[in-house]
Amino acid sequence: MTRASRSDLHREGLLDPPGTPEVSHDGSGRVRLHFLPLERDVRVPPGVTVFDAASWNGIAIDSTCGGHGTCKKCRIRITSGSVPVSRLDVRCFTADELRDGWRLACMAAALGDVSVDVPPLSTRPKAATVGVGRQVILRPAIQKRYVELAEPSLQDQRPDLDRVLDAIDDLELRPDLHVLRRLPGVLRSSSFAVTAVVVDDVLVDVEPGDTTGRRFGLAVDLGTTTVVATLLDTSTGTPAAVASMLNKQQPFGADVITRISATMLDPSALVRLRTLAQETLAELAVEVCAQAEVDPAEVYEVALAGNATMTALVLGIDPEPLGVAPFVMSTASWPALLKASDLGLPVHPAAPAVVFPALGAYVGGDIVAGMLASGMDRDKRLRLFIDVGTNCEIVLGDGERIVATAAPAGPAFEGGAIRCGMRAADGAIEVVKLSEDDVGLQVIGDVDAVGLCGSGLVDAVAELVRFGLLDSTGRLVSPEDAKEIAPGLADRFCSVGAERVFVLAWRGVEAAESVYLSQRDVRELQFAKAAIATGWTLLLAEFGIEPGDVQQVLLAGSFGSYLSPASAVRIGLVPKLSVLRIVSAGNVAGEGAKMVLLSMQERAGAAALLREVRYVELSDRPDFNDRFVDMLAFPG
Amino acid sequence: MTRASRSDLHREGLLDPPGTPEVSHDGSGRVRLHFLPLERDVRVPPGVTVFDAASWNGIAIDSTCGGHGTCKKCRIRITSGSVPVSRLDVRCFTADELRDGWRLACMAAALGDVSVDVPPLSTRPKAATVGVGRQVILRPAIQKRYVELAEPSLQDQRPDLDRVLDAIDDLELRPDLHVLRRLPGVLRSSSFAVTAVVVDDVLVDVEPGDTTGRRFGLAVDLGTTTVVATLLDTSTGTPAAVASMLNKQQPFGADVITRISATMLDPSALVRLRTLAQETLAELAVEVCAQAEVDPAEVYEVALAGNATMTALVLGIDPEPLGVAPFVMSTASWPALLKASDLGLPVHPAAPAVVFPALGAYVGGDIVAGMLASGMDRDKRLRLFIDVGTNCEIVLGDGERIVATAAPAGPAFEGGAIRCGMRAADGAIEVVKLSEDDVGLQVIGDVDAVGLCGSGLVDAVAELVRFGLLDSTGRLVSPEDAKEIAPGLADRFCSVGAERVFVLAWRGVEAAESVYLSQRDVRELQFAKAAIATGWTLLLAEFGIEPGDVQQVLLAGSFGSYLSPASAVRIGLVPKLSVLRIVSAGNVAGEGAKMVLLSMQERAGAAALLREVRYVELSDRPDFNDRFVDMLAFPG
Repeated sequence: MTRASRSDLHREGLLDPPGTPEVSHDGSGRVRLHFLPLERDVRVPPGVTVFDAASWNGIAIDSTCGGHGTCKKCRIRITSGSVPVSRLDVRCFTADELRDGWRLACMAAALGDVSVDVPPLSTRPKAATVGVGRQVILRPAIQKRYVELAEPSLQDQRPDLDRVLDAIDDLELRPDLHVLRRLPGVLRSSSFAVTAVVVDDVLVDVEPGDTTGRRFGLAVDLGTTTVVATLLDTSTGTPAAVASMLNKQQPFGADVITRISATMLDPSALVRLRTLAQETLAELAVEVCAQAEVDPAEVYEVALAGNATMTALVLGIDPEPLGVAPFVMSTASWPALLKASDLGLPVHPAAPAVVFPALGAYVGGDIVAGMLASGMDRDKRLRLFIDVGTNCEIVLGDGERIVATAAPAGPAFEGGAIRCGMRAADGAIEVVKLSEDDVGLQVIGDVDAVGLCGSGLVDAVAELVRFGLLDSTGRLVSPEDAKEIAPGLADRFCSVGAERVFVLAWRGVEAAESVYLSQRDVRELQFAKAAIATGWTLLLAEFGIEPGDVQQVLLAGSFGSYLSPASAVRIGLVPKLSVLRIVSAGNVAGEGAKMVLLSMQERAGAAALLREVRYVELSDRPDFNDRFVDMLAFPG
Repeated sequence: MTRASRSDLHREGLLDPPGTPEVSHDGSGRVRLHFLPLERDVRVPPGVTVFDAASWNGIAIDSTCGGHGTCKKCRIRITSGSVPVSRLDVRCFTADELRDGWRLACMAAALGDVSVDVPPLSTRPKAATVGVGRQVILRPAIQKRYVELAEPSLQDQRPDLDRVLDAIDDLELRPDLHVLRRLPGVLRSSSFAVTAVVVDDVLVDVEPGDTTGRRFGLAVDLGTTTVVATLLDTSTGTPAAVASMLNKQQPFGADVITRISATMLDPSALVRLRTLAQETLAELAVEVCAQAEVDPAEVYEVALAGNATMTALVLGIDPEPLGVAPFVMSTASWPALLKASDLGLPVHPAAPAVVFPALGAYVGGDIVAGMLASGMDRDKRLRLFIDVGTNCEIVLGDGERIVATAAPAGPAFEGGAIRCGMRAADGAIEVVKLSEDDVGLQVIGDVDAVGLCGSGLVDAVAELVRFGLLDSTGRLVSPEDAKEIAPGLADRFCSVGAERVFVLAWRGVEAAESVYLSQRDVRELQFAKAAIATGWTLLLAEFGIEPGDVQQVLLAGSFGSYLSPASAVRIGLVPKLSVLRIVSAGNVAGEGAKMVLLSMQERAGAAALLREVRYVELSDRPDFNDRFVDMLAFPG
């Protein structure tokens, strides 16, 4: 088989510049790819490669490199329409094959409508399961290439950099200054046998010898309360180590508003908050690297998901406009040239940082990451995504449309403004189960109960509602009525001061010394859950559908993971559905961060979400207050 | 006049993607533009705008913004061939006009052969004279735009950055992190009336109010000996201040080889050399800003020209491979993402730095800058460019072809290895003029002569040759012969030790105490000038032409500026030509640095030089030694 020369192809017009093929003008701005033998149609923006178009739609094309143009396995045949011949095609196919339409799918840009014949798989694509059961084909931005270069001579005085770039000329790379500093020494100390470290289109390093087996990334979920870092082996998709710790910004306040206020009161607070966030990240990075025995310099890329305030603070951006109406971000998407060092991370000095974009001041990068991890943009089911917290983010999608909003739920779910409220720490009641004559409790840390955390609060209220001890308006029944309804529990109906309470755990003879739920606590929870329910009610109205149409509810965030689905339904926090449809999604923000490290396609997906999701602002809706009042009651 | 809508144009196919027009396939890869009414043909790479193609070839098209797409004055009409309609065209022309071929020249990419009708000028383009009489049309990378933005509301929650970018949507900008940090505060402290600072495609800052009048750049000539910084007002092209000082690396050695050796002997020397170079630049930056009363934060871009070693050292790159055969650079071109801070310059924190690319280890960025400043790539005359120094760079061009080489001249021209040699400082003899019975001297600083600098050395030798007191082989005549040839000068022929000398300036009764030229000094100069002459002889041979064909010799660098053309001819340092053809070009490296700050086109020209110039390595030429020996003699 002889390869086609470029001049041959030129004569035949096969190398005509892109843009010539027929572009579909149906107004959608998309082109149609018809995949054979599956007979599947997909539509993508012009210029997307056939490989990407297939991957995004779950159509498997052979590949071991994941679309980097190196394995040359993704051979497909264009049976109608035309696709320009790429630089690599000329090396892989004969002129006859090119005329027959053979192309490498990863280099084949679909500029017009085409039909694509996909040969059966001979290799299984490397994939990893991440997020909410998402199967991600590994195509990390981090790549390594081992090359053995010719040593310079008077006949070959090519600069060191050219020597490296010429050896990996299927990639168009920009060198980091760091590489140029190391290059002369590394090449000569390793007899010109080196490994090029590439992240996306940046040459971040050149290492002596063959280090292709070692390529790590760091995924960070920068929460207001808790920060989680996962060290990922991007060659396998598996976590090498995970660590979490409290955000060191805690002393400035528990929630984003108190931290924003701190910067408004004291001009030096912004620098201190940035430093504290960066110290948190740095400690976690050091810890996960130590756990996995990975040199921090082997961590070549970082992905960070955080809410808009946390993201602004860690980058040193004034968060004030996020905290006051009309709630404006400095930017929705972060520049591609951010580095891990901008986040204070002591990893590879040239490692780029991917920071999740945000939809709005209160639907931040953590939620975009969560949407990605839970496939809100692809799943065809009608799904509701709820991240419960002081600020609650709500997303509704059906695979075609996505709408999102934020609801200010207040601190109740985190134990704030609740008489016996506390964080989900040792001693917190996290599960409450009432029986005729007893209160079953699950306490964190297997110690005596000292307070009530969010999930316990929801359970307590839900259980009282279930027994009729709390009416639908949210009023605790009187001790007299309690005696009739549930005599075994009646002695727990007391007063603390002038307020009616229900004692959950006795810590003495006095109710005041015990862990109890007060009438005002119930009101706090009613306000919180009404805000959330108003949010999803309005989103459902945007779609013109009823709560019962929802096929799945995803409860996200650390609080969502501990919430009892049954209780969430009972208090009306989520639509009234079978509990099987209500799923705890876990730390989806962190999962989203992992996904963008493992797949350039998922990264593109995160950026696409910004365009696809419509943000619905609740605070200026004229019907908000009416809906809110409707939602205060507990469902019958 | 109604504007054309995009959908109208779509239907008519006027918005078809680029690539459709006929591309010329004559193998040159260039397209032809025929300018009317001038009837001038020019050929440029496909994709170059009509505006650029015209500017590069001295064809004036109306413009006040210099091709940034803001003044909308560069209206031209395509009379044959086709050019896609740009986003701005739709705003500027009616559908009829577009059909007639009207376009904005600065947005009109020539993808195929076209004819262009250029209306007469109604405004004079802003230009400045820089370099060797080069007229540069001002089109700096630094731009400022004053914008008054809508304040955010609940109906308009666009992020701060979007607000700015939407207001200047004719540019596609990448924001620097620095901007994002300042943006929220600056917008709100200035009632959303701000000036966007753009450098090329980077949004480097947003400043309160209207600061469009203030935009400065810093051009640096980083010499091994002397460093010169020019603060440029890029809106007028005029220097606001100039300062120079000795490179603080001096204690590590006078020339590049001793500095490279220092890094090889001591691993910590690289860091110290980098620090010293950066301190030199920093002091100069502070000084020029103070002189001109410019805030360093108003300096938004920096251009640096230096030889390959100086450039490597200031960036902290190991220079060792530059100093040992086969003389290899780390890179020829520097990444576009370098910042002034990488050079240690205390100017605007996000200011980018343009570092001149190099042709080879010994034909560095200073020479590329010099070629640009002297128009080596455009002037149609056959010209020889010689930068005289320890290492001497030689370039030969005729507007079509350019070849370059480096010749190791040794330290003689800088006063090194010369008995009474010294730098061109106070007390140095810089001009020597013999008469029958006297020696006329010009001494730097109007003080008594204490030594001999390079230009004085060349003069002294040339004058002695002129009088026949030095024969063509380089031998000083005996005192006896001197008495016959020039009795009035004969007493100056003495001996110091066993060596014959010619006393230039008596500083006592003994020749040894005086300033003299020794026989060995003459030999040193012979070796130096022979190296240079061998260089240009071989370059002339590459072109197949004779020395007499050369139309102009440019003597560059600070040494070249002081050299007497007549003496240079007499000793054979340059071809035997009329002295009118031998021109001192001055500090062309610094001029080149200024040019790239003033014009994006010149910047592209500097990059193009790298592709156009062929580097000729002398050290492996088999005919080098023979030629060198031939060149030792002084011409008859």
